[in-house]
Amino acid sequence: MPIAKVHRISANGPDDASGIARAIEQGRIDPRGVIAVFGKTEGNGCVNDFSRGFATMTLTQFFAQFMPRGEAERICFVMSGGTEGAMAPHWTVFERADGEGSGPALAIGRAHTAALPPEHLGRAGQIASVADGVRAAMRDAGIDDPSGVHFVQVKCPLLTAQRIGDATTRGETVATSSTLKSMGLSRAASALGVAVALGELKAETIADKDIGENWSLHSGRASCSAGIELLGHEIVVLGMSSAWSGPLAIDHAVMSDALDVEPVRGALRRLGFAANGQLVGAECERLIALLAKAEPSQNAMLRGFRHTMLDDSDISPTRHARAFVCGALAGLVGHAEIYVSGGAEHQGPDGGGPVAVIATR
Amino acid sequence: MPIAKVHRISANGPDDASGIARAIEQGRIDPRGVIAVFGKTEGNGCVNDFSRGFATMTLTQFFAQFMPRGEAERICFVMSGGTEGAMAPHWTVFERADGEGSGPALAIGRAHTAALPPEHLGRAGQIASVADGVRAAMRDAGIDDPSGVHFVQVKCPLLTAQRIGDATTRGETVATSSTLKSMGLSRAASALGVAVALGELKAETIADKDIGENWSLHSGRASCSAGIELLGHEIVVLGMSSAWSGPLAIDHAVMSDALDVEPVRGALRRLGFAANGQLVGAECERLIALLAKAEPSQNAMLRGFRHTMLDDSDISPTRHARAFVCGALAGLVGHAEIYVSGGAEHQGPDGGGPVAVIATR
Amino acid sequence: MPIAKVHRISANGPDDASGIARAIEQGRIDPRGVIAVFGKTEGNGCVNDFSRGFATMTLTQFFAQFMPRGEAERICFVMSGGTEGAMAPHWTVFERADGEGSGPALAIGRAHTAALPPEHLGRAGQIASVADGVRAAMRDAGIDDPSGVHFVQVKCPLLTAQRIGDATTRGETVATSSTLKSMGLSRAASALGVAVALGELKAETIADKDIGENWSLHSGRASCSAGIELLGHEIVVLGMSSAWSGPLAIDHAVMSDALDVEPVRGALRRLGFAANGQLVGAECERLIALLAKAEPSQNAMLRGFRHTMLDDSDISPTRHARAFVCGALAGLVGHAEIYVSGGAEHQGPDGGGPVAVIATR
Amino acid sequence: MPIAKVHRISANGPDDASGIARAIEQGRIDPRGVIAVFGKTEGNGCVNDFSRGFATMTLTQFFAQFMPRGEAERICFVMSGGTEGAMAPHWTVFERADGEGSGPALAIGRAHTAALPPEHLGRAGQIASVADGVRAAMRDAGIDDPSGVHFVQVKCPLLTAQRIGDATTRGETVATSSTLKSMGLSRAASALGVAVALGELKAETIADKDIGENWSLHSGRASCSAGIELLGHEIVVLGMSSAWSGPLAIDHAVMSDALDVEPVRGALRRLGFAANGQLVGAECERLIALLAKAEPSQNAMLRGFRHTMLDDSDISPTRHARAFVCGALAGLVGHAEIYVSGGAEHQGPDGGGPVAVIATR
Repeated sequence: MPIAKVHRISANGPDDASGIARAIEQGRIDPRGVIAVFGKTEGNGCVNDFSRGFATMTLTQFFAQFMPRGEAERICFVMSGGTEGAMAPHWTVFERADGEGSGPALAIGRAHTAALPPEHLGRAGQIASVADGVRAAMRDAGIDDPSGVHFVQVKCPLLTAQRIGDATTRGETVATSSTLKSMGLSRAASALGVAVALGELKAETIADKDIGENWSLHSGRASCSAGIELLGHEIVVLGMSSAWSGPLAIDHAVMSDALDVEPVRGALRRLGFAANGQLVGAECERLIALLAKAEPSQNAMLRGFRHTMLDDSDISPTRHARAFVCGALAGLVGHAEIYVSGGAEHQGPDGGGPVAVIATR
Repeated sequence: MPIAKVHRISANGPDDASGIARAIEQGRIDPRGVIAVFGKTEGNGCVNDFSRGFATMTLTQFFAQFMPRGEAERICFVMSGGTEGAMAPHWTVFERADGEGSGPALAIGRAHTAALPPEHLGRAGQIASVADGVRAAMRDAGIDDPSGVHFVQVKCPLLTAQRIGDATTRGETVATSSTLKSMGLSRAASALGVAVALGELKAETIADKDIGENWSLHSGRASCSAGIELLGHEIVVLGMSSAWSGPLAIDHAVMSDALDVEPVRGALRRLGFAANGQLVGAECERLIALLAKAEPSQNAMLRGFRHTMLDDSDISPTRHARAFVCGALAGLVGHAEIYVSGGAEHQGPDGGGPVAVIATR
Repeated sequence: MPIAKVHRISANGPDDASGIARAIEQGRIDPRGVIAVFGKTEGNGCVNDFSRGFATMTLTQFFAQFMPRGEAERICFVMSGGTEGAMAPHWTVFERADGEGSGPALAIGRAHTAALPPEHLGRAGQIASVADGVRAAMRDAGIDDPSGVHFVQVKCPLLTAQRIGDATTRGETVATSSTLKSMGLSRAASALGVAVALGELKAETIADKDIGENWSLHSGRASCSAGIELLGHEIVVLGMSSAWSGPLAIDHAVMSDALDVEPVRGALRRLGFAANGQLVGAECERLIALLAKAEPSQNAMLRGFRHTMLDDSDISPTRHARAFVCGALAGLVGHAEIYVSGGAEHQGPDGGGPVAVIATR
Repeated sequence: MPIAKVHRISANGPDDASGIARAIEQGRIDPRGVIAVFGKTEGNGCVNDFSRGFATMTLTQFFAQFMPRGEAERICFVMSGGTEGAMAPHWTVFERADGEGSGPALAIGRAHTAALPPEHLGRAGQIASVADGVRAAMRDAGIDDPSGVHFVQVKCPLLTAQRIGDATTRGETVATSSTLKSMGLSRAASALGVAVALGELKAETIADKDIGENWSLHSGRASCSAGIELLGHEIVVLGMSSAWSGPLAIDHAVMSDALDVEPVRGALRRLGFAANGQLVGAECERLIALLAKAEPSQNAMLRGFRHTMLDDSDISPTRHARAFVCGALAGLVGHAEIYVSGGAEHQGPDGGGPVAVIATR
């Protein structure tokens, strides 16, 4: 029977795999079972954040010690830059092992989609491709019912001059000629693809012009990031499955704005936490991972008061949002080694975002 | 019988006094009773933050419409720059009025100390001067027992080349020849002066070398900021006095680190709030003002995990700290129009800080 | 016979008018003749730059000591934020006086246009309005031939929610619903209006869709900035006129990219400088003011090499560009108290910009 | 007869070695002759600049394709972060080959010093160690006379908690307990070591308290950077030697302040350039590399006017300085693919810095 293990490991820098090495030496991690590593790295989380690439190069080399390089490259490395406020840089290592016991328990599934034709990026074609990929990852995880899915991480491609040229040569048009905008559109369409696969939205009600524009459409369980290094999508599904056993469970919540922590408290309680006030002691230990998305609300207001995140030309809005949301969540869970990622197009409502909680059962 | 009124008013910019103007027009504020205005302004809160001076110039001109300019200049304007995360720029207007009723209730006192000889800055002489000033402000507020004091705001001077020259000419030495460092030392000595006046520390146990160095010495109720425009200290004391009546009460808490919100919940409960989870509805309305200090811990750790605030050469550590602490407090009180100020030398323990809560009784 | 005086005065902060005060006391400036003040203030030059408003408030109050407030408010205060690199914060005061002598000499003209209907902003209507205003300012300066004009400073309006609502109510559409974008469009249309008035472009060849898009269209003498405080345009024209006398002359150059200083050397030589190498001694003294625009090239290349200004999420591209261009110009003229302003839509070619040189004859 | 080759190669990112790969494929570079690579990488050049480590990891792996890894690690990789303004990210590859012809020509020498006892760092012991290393590198380069040396690049160690503990255990004290300050002290003592080796200063006239304090002591040819990865020093000497032949020559200049480009023009002329105005055409091609140090002057003045670099809490002073000095130098040499590095303790006078020019003979 498959067992999902999740290891949260502190990092002293984007090139510090020593904590993972120790866990392997001590037999806590079997590197050959590692499916994905989510990292919070200490760059700016924006365009010129080299901490992400540095971390990916470091981890790829690290795991290539234990397996053929091609296999190491198939591990899904999702590097999210930006550890603003007191957020702690760390790795979350997802491992699939064999074990005994009974479910339902945390299940992990993975899928890769085919290369996306550049003319589909940010359009219905990408939504369909991602939705198919999510369904494949659900099958890989042994989750039949979309309600069993609590978090979907998607790494999606972006447009480059060369890819645009390829589409143009074939007489096709692309959604944008800007590389930067294509990242947002790709995340947006990916999130909507997740929503379609999970039954949150119906594909036929989403027009191309809604993508990256109509924020009333969103998934409560999608987390998407764009990367130049891939042509298709890498998808990791986290959920509950009775086909899995092991020590872990997962649930999720949707924050409706940047300080809406009560739904997260609700998810903790559904997982058996008392969660009266801030987590302490054994409850703090039981919480294995907290994964969240953050962004400033577009109307520059939060609960009726103005925020200045969108008008600050010195600090990027996403950096403000991560620091603040991390503070709100850390106030609830009692530490700041949590994964708060920015850029949340269609990932939760405008100004809010999905949150996943992984804990021991 | 004196009554303290506190008005929290949103600001659309450092030069926006329109909300105060409206409150005066509507009879909610009598400008002649205004003692102090604390402002959160949307600059960087560091050296080149012109939003503070712009706000002070704006408010001084504004109040000079209602009183002689000299009187307007005597209002204690404490401008704290930096509205990181979702913190809302706003004014907190402190007014003294006459009324009926019974105490104890929120009491406000104010004092100005004599010009501080530059050679005393950052040394025992400044501690003594501030301690005397706090005692005078307590008398002004009608508070006899230091335990009745819950927040002391001190505006303190700094050293300039001219002031250093003045001391040197008289054969005296100064604590530092750096203007920037003198700001930190002045805040540090002022906080220790508050601690002495409130009986938190004994003056004779504080050596000059402890000032700005020995963070185990601190006040749980001091909030200090340095400004070039004054030679002595402006001190505002907030506390509870049975000689005052009116609708408001105050209490305080000390956060031991940047996410230690439970003591604040405790203060809310002492003021009669249920405070189970995040404040909502009527409880949210009852909270008039939340005043807090924030700073990164010097050992770069929070609850056993590393933070990167001190190593970020793009964003000042104080900006990170304000965003994060504001998030943690907003998660508790349900909005982000709160006053979180940085630069907390001896103001609460290292990495933590004092928090005052003003609420309707 | 009118005489133009130009005073370059160092500023110790956005609220430091003391240098201007001294010049008035010493009889070098007659405040009643002051037409305009251009300021370089030490903010970030972007959205949340409060140093500009602070400076404008300071100067308005300052000049109101010498004249009715309404007249002080008619002085054209153009505050350009951002003194990156070693750029020195300073004021350039333009004064009109009476004198004797013979021309041609530096001439200054000024005009205000009527309030611009919001639906014209960023469109042909604004181009026409600015072109008319430039012609009026030329008449005010006594300059008949557009070739006599060397620099045109335009302050232009922007769209606000209220102004957009006003247009919409009347059944009109606006060019953009984004306040931020409206600033760029307003500068763009203003620059094209200057180009039309000076005969650099023909109005009929400019389509609305070219505005803010087609950078091959540009003026070599326009400098534009948008401000929320005005509804029409304030226009200052600087040029040579035989109707003026006095000690000063002006010429201009167009930098084709961010390090193209040789055309500026050419302008210096036309004004009688040897300008072999860096200006020194008497030549350095003869240079009264250098006014320039700077921006990063959109293709991220400079002379065949990549620049990273557009990809830096920590420092705004305009800040990079001002620092670099100021360095290049300072290397030529021997000091950095020069006026380099960012945001150069249609003001010089992409990546370059117009430069005006004012010197003693 | 040894020949020095220098290759300036554009980089599309800190992990882009493709330009070097192409040069190797085309036979322009023999990787086994590579002695050093100086890189300008596009980070912030401050504490949390991961572009440097990323580049070093990339280049080490890259060269390990052509030689045993131990040898690849012996190549001196000097990564300088910060490509502010229009500075172009690039590599400068230094190669030693064999050839025919006659000198004098550019000569390159290299030396490694023994591990520095932590208690010597920032003190006379480090000065002596570096001076010895420079003499060894001069011997390696075949340069007898210090006047033949035009640039010395030193990579120096810093203190860590562990190294401090090691010294303390042995009963020794260290110059500082701050890792960050130890970087500045290490650079400072290294620069003074260069000055001693080159006869610019006498060791016996330098007191320990002068190190990092007395800026009147400096070298006109030193460029130093501190790195955590080494315990001793890596030293590269560039100069002219009659024992070398080949196509290249080197000279140097000292800028007395941030815009003092005329001494650089002088160096160009000594190398046979006309250098009237900005370099163009063939002269531009002849210039192979320009290596410079930049920093803000400590008195916040440049040629009598104030600069704001030291007071900017949003942008680090070194970033301002690099952008500005790069602009000044680019204005002279006609492009911005130049190596301007910050942090110039005792490397040139306060506010200025050394500049080396490498050109074809």
